Amino acid sequence: MNFSFLQELFSSITQRDALLRRRGDGPPLEHTQVIDACRKLLESDGEASSIALAGQALDGYSCLDEDEKTRFFQCLTEQFSADPEAVDGAYECYRDSRGNVDLQRLFEACEPQRQELLRRLNLTAGGTYELVRMREDLLPRLKAFPALEALDADFSHLFASWFNRGFLVLKRIDWNTPAAVLEKIIRYEAVHEICDWNDLRRRLDARDRRCFAFFHPAIGDEPLIFVEVALTRGMPERIQPILDANHEAIEAEDADSAAFFGISNCQVGLRGISFGNFLIKQVVKELKSELPRLKNFVTLSPVPGFRAWLDAERQDQRGRLDDDTRALLAELDQDDWLEDSERSKALGEVIKPLAAHYLTKERNARNLPLNTVARFHLGNGAELHRINWLGDTSRRGLSQFGSLMVNYLYVLDDIEGNHERYTTEGKVACSSQVRDQRRRARKHLKGDPVT
Amino acid sequence: MNFSFLQELFSSITQRDALLRRRGDGPPLEHTQVIDACRKLLESDGEASSIALAGQALDGYSCLDEDEKTRFFQCLTEQFSADPEAVDGAYECYRDSRGNVDLQRLFEACEPQRQELLRRLNLTAGGTYELVRMREDLLPRLKAFPALEALDADFSHLFASWFNRGFLVLKRIDWNTPAAVLEKIIRYEAVHEICDWNDLRRRLDARDRRCFAFFHPAIGDEPLIFVEVALTRGMPERIQPILDANHEAIEAEDADSAAFFGISNCQVGLRGISFGNFLIKQVVKELKSELPRLKNFVTLSPVPGFRAWLDAERQDQRGRLDDDTRALLAELDQDDWLEDSERSKALGEVIKPLAAHYLTKERNARNLPLNTVARFHLGNGAELHRINWLGDTSRRGLSQFGSLMVNYLYVLDDIEGNHERYTTEGKVACSSQVRDQRRRARKHLKGDPVT
Amino acid sequence: MNFSFLQELFSSITQRDALLRRRGDGPPLEHTQVIDACRKLLESDGEASSIALAGQALDGYSCLDEDEKTRFFQCLTEQFSADPEAVDGAYECYRDSRGNVDLQRLFEACEPQRQELLRRLNLTAGGTYELVRMREDLLPRLKAFPALEALDADFSHLFASWFNRGFLVLKRIDWNTPAAVLEKIIRYEAVHEICDWNDLRRRLDARDRRCFAFFHPAIGDEPLIFVEVALTRGMPERIQPILDANHEAIEAEDADSAAFFGISNCQVGLRGISFGNFLIKQVVKELKSELPRLKNFVTLSPVPGFRAWLDAERQDQRGRLDDDTRALLAELDQDDWLEDSERSKALGEVIKPLAAHYLTKERNARNLPLNTVARFHLGNGAELHRINWLGDTSRRGLSQFGSLMVNYLYVLDDIEGNHERYTTEGKVACSSQVRDQRRRARKHLKGDPVT
Amino acid sequence: MNFSFLQELFSSITQRDALLRRRGDGPPLEHTQVIDACRKLLESDGEASSIALAGQALDGYSCLDEDEKTRFFQCLTEQFSADPEAVDGAYECYRDSRGNVDLQRLFEACEPQRQELLRRLNLTAGGTYELVRMREDLLPRLKAFPALEALDADFSHLFASWFNRGFLVLKRIDWNTPAAVLEKIIRYEAVHEICDWNDLRRRLDARDRRCFAFFHPAIGDEPLIFVEVALTRGMPERIQPILDANHEAIEAEDADSAAFFGISNCQVGLRGISFGNFLIKQVVKELKSELPRLKNFVTLSPVPGFRAWLDAERQDQRGRLDDDTRALLAELDQDDWLEDSERSKALGEVIKPLAAHYLTKERNARNLPLNTVARFHLGNGAELHRINWLGDTSRRGLSQFGSLMVNYLYVLDDIEGNHERYTTEGKVACSSQVRDQRRRARKHLKGDPVT
Repeated sequence: MNFSFLQELFSSITQRDALLRRRGDGPPLEHTQVIDACRKLLESDGEASSIALAGQALDGYSCLDEDEKTRFFQCLTEQFSADPEAVDGAYECYRDSRGNVDLQRLFEACEPQRQELLRRLNLTAGGTYELVRMREDLLPRLKAFPALEALDADFSHLFASWFNRGFLVLKRIDWNTPAAVLEKIIRYEAVHEICDWNDLRRRLDARDRRCFAFFHPAIGDEPLIFVEVALTRGMPERIQPILDANHEAIEAEDADSAAFFGISNCQVGLRGISFGNFLIKQVVKELKSELPRLKNFVTLSPVPGFRAWLDAERQDQRGRLDDDTRALLAELDQDDWLEDSERSKALGEVIKPLAAHYLTKERNARNLPLNTVARFHLGNGAELHRINWLGDTSRRGLSQFGSLMVNYLYVLDDIEGNHERYTTEGKVACSSQVRDQRRRARKHLKGDPVT
Repeated sequence: MNFSFLQELFSSITQRDALLRRRGDGPPLEHTQVIDACRKLLESDGEASSIALAGQALDGYSCLDEDEKTRFFQCLTEQFSADPEAVDGAYECYRDSRGNVDLQRLFEACEPQRQELLRRLNLTAGGTYELVRMREDLLPRLKAFPALEALDADFSHLFASWFNRGFLVLKRIDWNTPAAVLEKIIRYEAVHEICDWNDLRRRLDARDRRCFAFFHPAIGDEPLIFVEVALTRGMPERIQPILDANHEAIEAEDADSAAFFGISNCQVGLRGISFGNFLIKQVVKELKSELPRLKNFVTLSPVPGFRAWLDAERQDQRGRLDDDTRALLAELDQDDWLEDSERSKALGEVIKPLAAHYLTKERNARNLPLNTVARFHLGNGAELHRINWLGDTSRRGLSQFGSLMVNYLYVLDDIEGNHERYTTEGKVACSSQVRDQRRRARKHLKGDPVT
Repeated sequence: MNFSFLQELFSSITQRDALLRRRGDGPPLEHTQVIDACRKLLESDGEASSIALAGQALDGYSCLDEDEKTRFFQCLTEQFSADPEAVDGAYECYRDSRGNVDLQRLFEACEPQRQELLRRLNLTAGGTYELVRMREDLLPRLKAFPALEALDADFSHLFASWFNRGFLVLKRIDWNTPAAVLEKIIRYEAVHEICDWNDLRRRLDARDRRCFAFFHPAIGDEPLIFVEVALTRGMPERIQPILDANHEAIEAEDADSAAFFGISNCQVGLRGISFGNFLIKQVVKELKSELPRLKNFVTLSPVPGFRAWLDAERQDQRGRLDDDTRALLAELDQDDWLEDSERSKALGEVIKPLAAHYLTKERNARNLPLNTVARFHLGNGAELHRINWLGDTSRRGLSQFGSLMVNYLYVLDDIEGNHERYTTEGKVACSSQVRDQRRRARKHLKGDPVT
Repeated sequence: MNFSFLQELFSSITQRDALLRRRGDGPPLEHTQVIDACRKLLESDGEASSIALAGQALDGYSCLDEDEKTRFFQCLTEQFSADPEAVDGAYECYRDSRGNVDLQRLFEACEPQRQELLRRLNLTAGGTYELVRMREDLLPRLKAFPALEALDADFSHLFASWFNRGFLVLKRIDWNTPAAVLEKIIRYEAVHEICDWNDLRRRLDARDRRCFAFFHPAIGDEPLIFVEVALTRGMPERIQPILDANHEAIEAEDADSAAFFGISNCQVGLRGISFGNFLIKQVVKELKSELPRLKNFVTLSPVPGFRAWLDAERQDQRGRLDDDTRALLAELDQDDWLEDSERSKALGEVIKPLAAHYLTKERNARNLPLNTVARFHLGNGAELHRINWLGDTSRRGLSQFGSLMVNYLYVLDDIEGNHERYTTEGKVACSSQVRDQRRRARKHLKGDPVT
């Protein structure tokens, strides 16, 4: 539509301004004052004055200090639950009738008042974003105050509904994007830090780079998640040439591969609400339509935790690494192996198979891969395609990923099947190369019988 | 933000196109096929292929004929409920612990599967609007199939969350609005029919007219509700001069009153999700900021049902109207009283008090006014300000409203108090003039002792 | 492309409002008052108060009656010319030096003051459009007052510069276009009248219709020229099926031809400033990029003046038509030939050749085709491709075009060559079919020796 | 106002991309090849293939090296002039008739072919900007090759018409502006350098800062000129607090003054086409409408050249400074006076009067103030309101402006009169304070008789 932009411009500006002016500006409050405001909001009939009451409650919240916030959350959890007698009554009816109408009443009786409260807080302009920020405050408290999990469940329940894929908008981010948004891209980039605006420009605006983000209309210019893409000839093995300030751009039309080299969630307060999967698939669609010659849609992904796993194995004398392998890996403790291509190559020949093992065989309690990045892409239906030695030779790459970068390959026709086998049988889709490497890993591992 | 418009343009076009192409195009289907598609969608893990599955299910639904739709709704209601054993188990835990976590689990166990199904159907582009249309199909079936109320409750629950005020966008509608939107304004106008585009232009685009609508970003160019406003000098008594094709526009800056003369809900499928209250209040805000000289914010509202009520009273010999009054009102059955100003005036002197009585004293079972329009504005905190005889002399105005139009007055400072007294005590805020009229009504009514 | 309306929305609102309020609102003025305002504007230094002075002069102009406008134009022509002594002096310098700098001075000395005046009138908001309207007032006076040609030359000179192709913006017009623009499309359609908004929607918004217009940023939502396109399978012969309210739309992707069936200039005041050629070529580009399968870009054009030419020939006993032909054509004076397919066919067999002759051989003083539409498309490099008997059977089609519609074909690779041969040699590019018809015409024409 | 970027976003993407790909990419060319392309363009009939030919000529130009560019300009000047015989013939007719039509013909005969060439080069997408850049290349050559002045006159003539105020668009620049535009603001800021994006943000986006620019629709996202504004309580005396990274923002609504502290022309190629005056006045209008409480519209302007003038006077023993003053001013050569408030104050007491003298009495050959900034603002109708000692204590402020910053005050009601007296009588509008200072300057100047 032609005009919607105008309104959104207006509303996002005002909302954000209101927000900035509000947060922290007032005098310090006690949590009981905010709890009172919440109660008043719940007691209103949800219409006449609710917007104003919601604004007051959120204003109040923003003036709480850290301790008072904790107490506020505790009160919410304890005092805004459901009425046990109502639940009992509704249950009895349901037990007798087993009818749909009684089920509905039971459902309503069970819904904690907190959910209605959150819905009403959402009435005010900018409320959605403030609730996301409120959950951002809540999450780190869950460990120390496990009772707050109930409150977190309410947030999760509502956010899953509000941030439904159907409400998200995909947008390309480039040098024509307002600075207010770009600045957030710099701030939220989680994978490979963006140093400054020049670095950002290289990442977004070169002919062979793309960046896409999901936005939510009520949250305005705050991205929810974004992905950075490099258009390349051939699937890239290494991240440094991609990040290189002096990289020579190719024409987008000449690329055959799109490499997703950074996916960053922006809103801590939306943890657990999954967008990444939808984002990747829609970006694949957008890119295919812009550049029909693209053939490979692949990631260039880190292997967080691999080096820690490897070091633990190395230190565990009764562990699974055999002694020769352990001896060879001692090289890693030397500073200079990276400069010596021969030693480096020898190390790679051992580590790649071990990584293939780590990524596919090391599992958590739910029989899913230990590695979170692997879990994400395999769960999306990607294939573990290639393990790249010296893929990331930055300090962080060496110390955390053992220099490895992994290509996960998204083959549109296989996604469904891969996903199915992964979720039902726990089967990890691998290229033949990775399968070979995994097989070769056995000779480095004690007690992994060759089958 | 600068660019959001681009995306929305794109998405709204594609979505709407997709929609149009889909609806009804396929071969007729049986409801079991769509039920199967729904089941498949629910069994997916909500990510990998859900968007496609949701699209298939909605496509399928659009190919059902009326009978199959009924059966589809019945299957949804019966087969996608909650698992009684899971509910029992969760209840037992809750009964024992009375804890928040167990309450949460019970809440989840009680949630009918239908709700998750609706959330997943919403994943696909344009899904939100198709769900609204699905409920539009459902509502007229509730009478014949009361069991479907449970399904309707699920729609209501989700729509109340999705169409939260915080997600709506207010937009001015004028002659610069895309034709695709304006055409819907013509179609949805419920109060005073818009004949054609010329009539529309007069309503929207004259210097002394305004029109505002609420939109929802995921529904694109479909308005949810809109209001038409006339800027006037003095509060208007009569609708015909406002609708008159030859009315002479005044400068907006010269107006002291903004008269809301038409509020139309556009989406049947959103019945019960209330926007009107929020709309009026935000429009008052917009107008005040555009035109600081405006002093009165008032409606010019119809009195649907008044004539029917009056006629029933007239015919009921044992009713409350005294005989003199009944005799006088017999004039109404003559065709020509309207032309005779004396007779007309005499009639008005009787009817206005009776209307004051009707609007304030005739109540429904919940002790709220019988008249729906009165209920809406009084519930919003407005005052019943003036009853205008000959306010609407159109055929419809005469036959349904007894020619009356009513001004409900929104005084910002009083809204809160009026609303409070109305909801708690059932007290109707009236101007002294209306109070006088109500008092005068007693002499026409038997058995209404003068107190 | 739609989104560019935003800027214009803004500017057009302010400008147009200003305009509307101004035009005609003031008391009647005399031309001398406006001339004084113009003189004051010219005497200002072009900066400090020029915007206000320009506004006053244009306001004043809008309050002149028709006679005073004539006098105003005459004063402008006579009193705002160049200074003869300055011209003489500058010419003498130039004659002596033949230098570039002296040429420049002479050029400046020759420039009528009117041009600087028009540039300054353009300073005010909305001024550009008001000057276009002023020339619209001027043009019809040229015949009676040929001295005003000098003033018209000034307008032409400036407009050619201001409305340079580089400043125009192409936009697609569809149902998402603001009503304020669409209403102008209805008004300006010159070829096949648009009856109402429903008709408009069919023309623009069907899947197999397109409409594009040129806009100028300073003129806002006033289109300069627009073209209507039908996407068809095969080149269309007849206009009625295209305009038919019940025509069944095809999928755009299935079309192999784009038929330009209406090109309308919107601004009389821009007569002689040519856009049509640029418009057609850019629209061909846009369509090729949207729909790569399109093969034929062709017009379906009327033949204005053909019937008048034919009737004149018929009536001229000493004219070129031989007697048999004249006898046969007498059928045309019967009302019922159209219903009789045999007679109609026989007529077509005579008239098509005569039309081929008319379109290619009947020339004006500059040796270009008499027919203006032919001149336009042939001058653009199109080929005269096909003459369609019964192409337009509307009353107007019959009475003015002899029911003919013509396809002019734009073959991108031939445009340059066709254009070249047309402009240098006067050669008309024809399909072999048209060449045959032209040859066959000879047997109907006296004294056209068979060569 | 932001929203107009949309159109430009679109156009700038295409245009700029084209441009970037073109510029410098091709093999080096000789100027004769480009001259040939220009000739071909002029010989075309201005329609059929002109856009392509214009593109080729501009492409060619971009591949010329510096020497070839000079030769290209020389050829343009010499070979694309007017035809002397045509001029002679047209003049003779005019001399005989003195008629308007003959004048028009003479005007056309005198117009150098270069102007038509430039108009045709402008047909291609992005052509306008490339022509501005071409003049940017031309200007530095004028000194060495004065014959090129004729060519420059052609550019000036056309640019004055194309960049007419009526075609410019004012836009607010803030943090929601696309980065592509903001980056240019950083680059073009001429008065007080912007260090980086953080600095930019402070300048634009603080609550008490505003920035506005003029854009031209055909040039897209390239600003023509922009102004930075600080909203302050009281007229500011010093620039450092305004530029200070840690300045504490006030609420815009609390400001009574708007201080224009930086006006930067962005396009060298538009030198001599004046926008600044229009910009200031329109910004005053915008600000008044946004913030009705603003009372003072004032600049905080540098005094470029003052220190050089002062030093020259100091060194000229026979100059006008009397010996005491010269002795006192010797302090300036010491490094440490700035730290010593007493000495600094004493210096100020001498220098402010001398600056008042310099700004008002030191004139150029046209009897206008020597100082360019003074000339600009006084010519716009501002008043020389206050001279601020220690107004700019940056290194540059000290070495070039003698630490002075000047407030020029724009009083809307006086602008017209000030401007009039300035242009007709050379009279400089001064506050009484400045008049006092100017009077006091006499005691420091020899031979300035007290009048």
